[in-house]
Amino acid sequence: MRLTQFTDLSLRVLMRLAVEKGDLPTTRDVAAAMAVSYAHTAKAVAKLQHLGLVETRRGRGGGLELTATGRRASIGALVRELEGAGDVVDCDGAVPCPLRAACRLRGALRQAQEAFFASLDPLTLADLVEAPTGPLLVALSLAPGAD
Amino acid sequence: MRLTQFTDLSLRVLMRLAVEKGDLPTTRDVAAAMAVSYAHTAKAVAKLQHLGLVETRRGRGGGLELTATGRRASIGALVRELEGAGDVVDCDGAVPCPLRAACRLRGALRQAQEAFFASLDPLTLADLVEAPTGPLLVALSLAPGAD
Repeated sequence: MRLTQFTDLSLRVLMRLAVEKGDLPTTRDVAAAMAVSYAHTAKAVAKLQHLGLVETRRGRGGGLELTATGRRASIGALVRELEGAGDVVDCDGAVPCPLRAACRLRGALRQAQEAFFASLDPLTLADLVEAPTGPLLVALSLAPGAD
Repeated sequence: MRLTQFTDLSLRVLMRLAVEKGDLPTTRDVAAAMAVSYAHTAKAVAKLQHLGLVETRRGRGGGLELTATGRRASIGALVRELEGAGDVVDCDGAVPCPLRAACRLRGALRQAQEAFFASLDPLTLADLVEAPTGPLLVALSLAPGAD
């Protein structure tokens, strides 16, 4: 069972921004701290801006910043949004499954997917960056080569 | 969020076998009824035999048959087995995630994955082939070209 790399990276970008106390990081800084490509990180940042979770502050000391909405957002709601509403199996692919119109497996898997999201619903970024994760994120951001 | 095609197909093979009342179907019959390739179906059948859920009866009227274990198996346990114990994101890929040793996101996603499986735990094949799914499976098996 897999989430997309895009969801994974988007969550890590948000976690990185949630620990920032000083100068705001750029997309390049965040990519370096997370050991991922600039291009992938830029795409995630664009999506997060579009969702109103991240904004860019311009000028000296400027960079990426969580919005109040981003800080309060439910991780379950975020993952629902980033993963989309599709089924966990491909019922309607190039050769559609002949069972798809009357499938109890499909219903059971949808309920299970909802249980997955519901488990993440009570969490916010603050929960994900509690120690030891938050201090590690700060250390990675300060490491040589991270900016 | 996606399950592997292998898990999806394996579950559908089991559902097809769960409605059989007459001559046992061959792997080729099951593949035709499900509109999937013989090769993929044969791999799923081999895995299900290895797990003790399906057996082959030889001779006239022979074919694939659910074992008593297969009939009683929990769908949650089956999906756990077929999907494996890996994370829902790739923490240990070619460039491992620098957070992996101290990551609250990883813990939260593992709990969510467990909630997914737990939602399927109370179900057996009998639940998945209740109407309207079971009668549709029977109809597909009898359709011209399905055997």
